[in-house]
Amino acid sequence: MSKALPSRSENYSEWYNELVKRADLAENSAVRGCMVIKPYGYSIWEKMQQTLDKMFKDTGHTNAYFPLFVPKSFLELEEGHAEGFAKECAVVTHYRLKTNPDKKGKLMVDPEAKLEEELIVRPTSEAVIWNTYKNWIQSYRDLPLLINQWANVVRWEMRTRLFLRTAEFLWQEGHTAHATAEEAVAETKLILDVYANFVENFMALPVIKGVKTENERFAGAVDTYCIEALMQDGKALQAGTSHFLGQNFAKAFDVRFTDRNNQLEYVWGTSWGVSTRLMGALVMAHSDDDGLILPPNLAPIQVVIVPIYKSEEGLQKIDAKVAEIKQNLQKQGISVKYDNRDTQRPGFKFAEWELKGVPVRIAIGERDLENNVAEVARRDTKTKQSIGLDGLTEEIIKLLADIHTNIYQRALAFRNEHITEVKTYEEFKEVLENKGGFVKAHWDGTSETEEKIKEETKATIRCIPLDAEKVAGNCIVTGKPSAQQVLFARAY
Amino acid sequence: MSKALPSRSENYSEWYNELVKRADLAENSAVRGCMVIKPYGYSIWEKMQQTLDKMFKDTGHTNAYFPLFVPKSFLELEEGHAEGFAKECAVVTHYRLKTNPDKKGKLMVDPEAKLEEELIVRPTSEAVIWNTYKNWIQSYRDLPLLINQWANVVRWEMRTRLFLRTAEFLWQEGHTAHATAEEAVAETKLILDVYANFVENFMALPVIKGVKTENERFAGAVDTYCIEALMQDGKALQAGTSHFLGQNFAKAFDVRFTDRNNQLEYVWGTSWGVSTRLMGALVMAHSDDDGLILPPNLAPIQVVIVPIYKSEEGLQKIDAKVAEIKQNLQKQGISVKYDNRDTQRPGFKFAEWELKGVPVRIAIGERDLENNVAEVARRDTKTKQSIGLDGLTEEIIKLLADIHTNIYQRALAFRNEHITEVKTYEEFKEVLENKGGFVKAHWDGTSETEEKIKEETKATIRCIPLDAEKVAGNCIVTGKPSAQQVLFARAY
Repeated sequence: MSKALPSRSENYSEWYNELVKRADLAENSAVRGCMVIKPYGYSIWEKMQQTLDKMFKDTGHTNAYFPLFVPKSFLELEEGHAEGFAKECAVVTHYRLKTNPDKKGKLMVDPEAKLEEELIVRPTSEAVIWNTYKNWIQSYRDLPLLINQWANVVRWEMRTRLFLRTAEFLWQEGHTAHATAEEAVAETKLILDVYANFVENFMALPVIKGVKTENERFAGAVDTYCIEALMQDGKALQAGTSHFLGQNFAKAFDVRFTDRNNQLEYVWGTSWGVSTRLMGALVMAHSDDDGLILPPNLAPIQVVIVPIYKSEEGLQKIDAKVAEIKQNLQKQGISVKYDNRDTQRPGFKFAEWELKGVPVRIAIGERDLENNVAEVARRDTKTKQSIGLDGLTEEIIKLLADIHTNIYQRALAFRNEHITEVKTYEEFKEVLENKGGFVKAHWDGTSETEEKIKEETKATIRCIPLDAEKVAGNCIVTGKPSAQQVLFARAY
Repeated sequence: MSKALPSRSENYSEWYNELVKRADLAENSAVRGCMVIKPYGYSIWEKMQQTLDKMFKDTGHTNAYFPLFVPKSFLELEEGHAEGFAKECAVVTHYRLKTNPDKKGKLMVDPEAKLEEELIVRPTSEAVIWNTYKNWIQSYRDLPLLINQWANVVRWEMRTRLFLRTAEFLWQEGHTAHATAEEAVAETKLILDVYANFVENFMALPVIKGVKTENERFAGAVDTYCIEALMQDGKALQAGTSHFLGQNFAKAFDVRFTDRNNQLEYVWGTSWGVSTRLMGALVMAHSDDDGLILPPNLAPIQVVIVPIYKSEEGLQKIDAKVAEIKQNLQKQGISVKYDNRDTQRPGFKFAEWELKGVPVRIAIGERDLENNVAEVARRDTKTKQSIGLDGLTEEIIKLLADIHTNIYQRALAFRNEHITEVKTYEEFKEVLENKGGFVKAHWDGTSETEEKIKEETKATIRCIPLDAEKVAGNCIVTGKPSAQQVLFARAY
């Protein structure tokens, strides 16, 4: 608490790392690339989970649980999938340790307990799940199958970053099976809308919906739909993906069904996921040099109340009033914390709750009681006002809604200011270097050009936007014809 | 649906396996020892999770998340712990696969991607968590630390059984740190009470609280408290454990704090867990030869409504009435499913919902509508009654409470009939062989005698009961003095 955070303008990356740790969201563990999600951080993730889980259930999905391990031979079955994940996976080769005869108190792998077939710690569960679906699907009556799983997955990333890129992360992965391509595509888009709705209305973060290019597509998918958000440093962040798998996994795992005409057909599939990466997006999108700014809809504590007192007697009077205020707020479903610690001064508490991003802070002193008012501060604008205690609950409800709208609009304005249309590759590089954000440009549709741009500028095509007007033009690099502008950016 | 279940009396074990699969709770996966928890089974587990999670939070605990992997050297630090878990663990040795140059389309472990230190897939998280607590705890002000984690764990069991013993299972593991031994013991007991409360009031299953003997203690604990339940085949099942860890892990991981007198002391710890094993207990405790009998407090569907109609017009009338009934029940927080599938006949539906253990079934026909009644069947007793539609909601509420009480009392009566006090080892063996259940006997307190009994009879000491009267006597095997009878049983 004592030392100030690094500022965003000086060192955005340091600011992020320090903020995640000091606000008690997460920290690096002793296990390479794996993080510990601390209680405060986890309580935000729980709110995300609960909200999304309800959205999935409201759209007809149910949860299930599939094994952590993927046999190596399963991964081999879908070629693109195998290529995408084999290079960065944790491989279980043995099932026992034994005492090391040469080193007292030490353990070693027991060479006699070698697995016949290596097991991969799931990087994603398509392989295991489609192998299961094979037994669950015989007829069109078994379809659609709309299943989600909340799980941990492991991808052996070399350079890791709290929440944004960790060897192990938590996520949900939906895996659905359908009788027709149309149904599967509709499911893919439905989920993209669920994700966009969640990120915009709960995380207060505007997103652009789009389709990935072949280079950026999920390994094993026919099409990858995504939502892309912009962080305060001008880098993009992929916030969620929804994949139309075509019949790829059905063919790899021989999942066929008898359709209404009694024909045997391969099943159509989708998969979709969001992860603890969203926690990183949440931090990066809204927070400032004093700490987190949490959107009210996901803040574990929405209102914190701090008493300002000079005597034990004064505190008792405040305690009584706060009990009443707290009860009124809780009745409206607002989560409130009364910080009456006697070990810390108000200034310390203010700074701590600022750091932790609590949307609204109420301070009540003895004189406030006499005047029947409280000082209400909002985290997003750092403005304060005196509010009468009689109408306090209503004012707080309005304030929480205002805060959501304000931080959403702030992020939207920033994002919109950072979509720059360019006509030439020179301009493209100049914008990337000096301004950042999304760069809207024509591209000839080839992987070669995309690769060249990535190598030269570190920018990737974030997406081909779904809702954009299609205006033809010429590729900024090759001059070849292009049907539609795409969005480039440097990205997390 | 077509074939009857094996009966409990013929083959209890087959009955259990078949029931778990046919009621859509779980099935074996293609990954050795790992199960797939199917949507219906998972929805029961979700209710268990939600209920327990609220209980933990109401007693001051918060959730967090720690890494899946335990470095081998961490496991070595607490000797007893290492011995207990090293023999059955999944070991990650490599972090990459590569294409096999000798076999087209095949993958192999990349020998160049060998980890410097092997990682164990967590069998439990004491080691990783205490290594983290070391950094979180400096002063008595940092205590108590009351943290829980919902996670998957892996123990490489050789003989597995759906829910009861699987290589991977889901659980919660609480890990708390305290300033004094008294506080830690109090926490251990508090959690034991939470578990007993949950199992009795939600699973409708009576339990005996006790302490484990040294042989049965958790690897690394000073004392293991447990709750033990009895299944219908007379075998016991450990439903939950709560461990007083003393300072064992604090010493192994050097976790010390400055106490109020400014002295540096080792921290006192506890850990506690329940797992998807409870799903097995739930099935085994109440179900019958027709299928599951779910306790109303955990049933994902509490009431199913089946229309009995002869014409489309009749169905429409029933539909309208059912919409009303359903709404009234849902207003009272009761989960209702209206099974209006036109592909199946009522008899088929009745059998299916019986198999799936739905506590209450309402059947409504056209004549019932005229008489303003419905036929209400309860799953536990298989009795039916005609109930007037006007008071239906109130009757259903009463019925659900009745069903809970009835199946709890039934299990309690069975359990109490199956606690047999014996004076001699002959009698002991005779009871185990012909009656089963708990056998209450004097034991001399030595591991040798306990081992001998286990080898000769397959019975273990389930616990030294906490609430039992302490009457001295003589060990049934050695005749040596014993301060208190203990409970033996064959167990899952």
